[in-house]
Amino acid sequence: MKKTIILFLCLGQFVLSQDPGIEQTISRIYTASLEQGASYQWLDHLSNQIGGRLSGSLNAERAVEWGKETLEGLDLDRVWLQKVMVPKWVRGTFEYANIETSPGNTINVPVCALGGSIATPASGIRATVVEVQSFKELEELGEAGVKGKIVFFNRPMAADNIHTFEAYSAAVNQRTQGAAQASKYGAVAAIVRSLNLRLDDFPHTGSTRYDGIPLSQRIPAAAISTNGAELLSSMLKLNPNLKFFLKQNCKNYPDVLSYNVIGEIKGTKFPEQIMVVGGHLDSWDLGDGSHDDGAGIVQSMEVLRLFKKLKIQPKRTLRVVLYMNEENGMRGGKKYASEAFRMQTPHYFALESDAGGFTPRGFSFDCTTAQYEQMRLWFDYLAPYQIHEFSRGGSGADIGPLKDGRVVLAGLRPDSQRYFDYHHAANDTFDAINKRELELGAAAMASLVYLMDQFDVSSPD
Amino acid sequence: MKKTIILFLCLGQFVLSQDPGIEQTISRIYTASLEQGASYQWLDHLSNQIGGRLSGSLNAERAVEWGKETLEGLDLDRVWLQKVMVPKWVRGTFEYANIETSPGNTINVPVCALGGSIATPASGIRATVVEVQSFKELEELGEAGVKGKIVFFNRPMAADNIHTFEAYSAAVNQRTQGAAQASKYGAVAAIVRSLNLRLDDFPHTGSTRYDGIPLSQRIPAAAISTNGAELLSSMLKLNPNLKFFLKQNCKNYPDVLSYNVIGEIKGTKFPEQIMVVGGHLDSWDLGDGSHDDGAGIVQSMEVLRLFKKLKIQPKRTLRVVLYMNEENGMRGGKKYASEAFRMQTPHYFALESDAGGFTPRGFSFDCTTAQYEQMRLWFDYLAPYQIHEFSRGGSGADIGPLKDGRVVLAGLRPDSQRYFDYHHAANDTFDAINKRELELGAAAMASLVYLMDQFDVSSPD
Repeated sequence: MKKTIILFLCLGQFVLSQDPGIEQTISRIYTASLEQGASYQWLDHLSNQIGGRLSGSLNAERAVEWGKETLEGLDLDRVWLQKVMVPKWVRGTFEYANIETSPGNTINVPVCALGGSIATPASGIRATVVEVQSFKELEELGEAGVKGKIVFFNRPMAADNIHTFEAYSAAVNQRTQGAAQASKYGAVAAIVRSLNLRLDDFPHTGSTRYDGIPLSQRIPAAAISTNGAELLSSMLKLNPNLKFFLKQNCKNYPDVLSYNVIGEIKGTKFPEQIMVVGGHLDSWDLGDGSHDDGAGIVQSMEVLRLFKKLKIQPKRTLRVVLYMNEENGMRGGKKYASEAFRMQTPHYFALESDAGGFTPRGFSFDCTTAQYEQMRLWFDYLAPYQIHEFSRGGSGADIGPLKDGRVVLAGLRPDSQRYFDYHHAANDTFDAINKRELELGAAAMASLVYLMDQFDVSSPD
Repeated sequence: MKKTIILFLCLGQFVLSQDPGIEQTISRIYTASLEQGASYQWLDHLSNQIGGRLSGSLNAERAVEWGKETLEGLDLDRVWLQKVMVPKWVRGTFEYANIETSPGNTINVPVCALGGSIATPASGIRATVVEVQSFKELEELGEAGVKGKIVFFNRPMAADNIHTFEAYSAAVNQRTQGAAQASKYGAVAAIVRSLNLRLDDFPHTGSTRYDGIPLSQRIPAAAISTNGAELLSSMLKLNPNLKFFLKQNCKNYPDVLSYNVIGEIKGTKFPEQIMVVGGHLDSWDLGDGSHDDGAGIVQSMEVLRLFKKLKIQPKRTLRVVLYMNEENGMRGGKKYASEAFRMQTPHYFALESDAGGFTPRGFSFDCTTAQYEQMRLWFDYLAPYQIHEFSRGGSGADIGPLKDGRVVLAGLRPDSQRYFDYHHAANDTFDAINKRELELGAAAMASLVYLMDQFDVSSPD
């Protein structure tokens, strides 16, 4: 069991000296989200009427339009689009693989191209396979052991790490860098075990990077389902000379114009200070992106709807940003931050939801120790809502670029045990979302934003 | 938003002065449960090969046999059956209801008989409906407003209470006592809104009690799905004179013989002191009882399997009890306790899992303040496993009868947001179980038992 040292908040006994006005507002936020919430219906539309929305796709543009129109219906002070150029990668019309144990005897295995991968030749790639668990192993094999072969990266996520995002981080370099590493030694393709904690038949996509490798030296990369990986590994033990066949016709296109969708409620006292909540509007193309990150989108929009509905007037300007292109480029998050720096827009707080729509358990903060100590004093306002896990560490990919040593960054931390069952796969669909859990996440976010606005957290200087 | 004052543990910073031997054992427990656990496969068998197992049914006897055989395969020191007479109620061959808006115009609505209910006459019951939210309302209507009618109890579970078991407790009297109360005023049947937080088409069964009302004065009771309840309520507003038709042929039979299934590992130092873990082996008959309480059964069995597998020798005797008949009589729990008292078997600790197979979040304890203060000192051994919610209050229905002022009683507290989506309904099936979440619960239980055994918690005298 791998362990993580997390700083836990001393919750103490339920503090009775809390401000009843603040308690009551948080209670109203929860009741409104659970009893008349909009998040679930919004997600139904985004998932089922629009669907998967990879950057640069028609669906992504439909999602932008929907996001803008929906925010315009909330009577905010301002709604606008922020231009951003995004990569365009298209999966193509087929992806296919099999294990050939002897000439003519094949078993199909579920695969999908990794985002950004090049296509195979039109006739596919047929080659022997070398299985590795790490880049070190790959390096030891060297060109002699790799040239002309397909490299099969098969290091599983560690099932015994209850912090599933850590298990993901410890395995994801196979997907992001596997093809680039394998190409150095003359491999002809890379097959990566899906980043999934359970055994099933869904291949999980996600981006791979060639990191400056010239086009002519790039090799195709695909994910294989966990069951497929187990099968391939077993069969390699029986026959190390078996052939693997891969065919995919995905393609990279030039960048296209897209947008971050932004809406805001002007602050009453410090309108120049911005509090931003958001998630990413793009998703992968296999499922409908309900958990990643449809949930974060509708929860973030719901924060502003709840403020309006409950007539909570923020002292600071409250902004929602639906970032474009988190999945394969992070262009939206970078663009938003660079514009904020260019315009010298002071950001007081940024909150991201991009870890699934499951029961919220806490928040992770990226801030100074002095800021964290100030916030700790009022975390227990959230204890009655089973928000217990406060930690310091990361916040979110899209808000990360805002970091300037002053802004407090935070990420919603839902229960993570089921997240990688769905992540980047065809089963990340609306039916995997629980309405209450989604609504609890929106309420927790709105409550945290409200608390951040009520209690002025000073910046370090 | 209703609030609950819960005593939270001061987790403080991660305590570095913990005993590394204890930390390591807990780590081994988690790894073994998550990487080579038996709980999920056991539940697959219990749910899919046996299925729903209402007390007194053939399936319940098959479950007893399976439980005994499975425990016998674990190399325990002793496995035995404890006889217990249980009620036998059979749903019968049909249950059917419709709303008749005008003669000949009917809309079917999903209903199911409540456990213990009598049948309707063979030709069914057709009557006008009076909708109430409470027994007080019923009393105010009196015989003048109720006689000859069907009483429709339609008080929903409070969606804004994040403690869903509290919301359940606040609504369940409609199901348990509704028919008995309505019969006092001459009602001909009782229809109860399903105890479900979401709107769907599954009626939720559960026991109803006639509490000494003579057979001739009893009236049939059925649950209606939440969507059905909403429809009925809306249509009553349009036409208060509409007729409701109910037909069901369930039946009560004389008590039959059944069994608690018990297995134990003898303690090395205090073998006379018993630590017991358990859940209930019976379930309702609509689904396969995967969450209620197949999960608790396999988690409890897994505790002993993990102790054996990891060669953890408990100082005290560790016993698993698969209680029979929690759902409609609690006979197994009562029998186990009465035998323990009769034989003067000292119980040191009792732990129950009967709140679903979801991600474990903590434990609730029923013990003295002095005992709780002793335990608090070592709760933080569980913090790395995201077990944060320790509270005082109830433990579990089956272990409750063991309470004697000395024994520490505890209940596993998993995330409860989805529990009532499935509770007592046809969708409480194996596919609603997540393997990791189930295994985390088993590991949390085994770890708590291990900690209770390591740290001697003194009884009050």
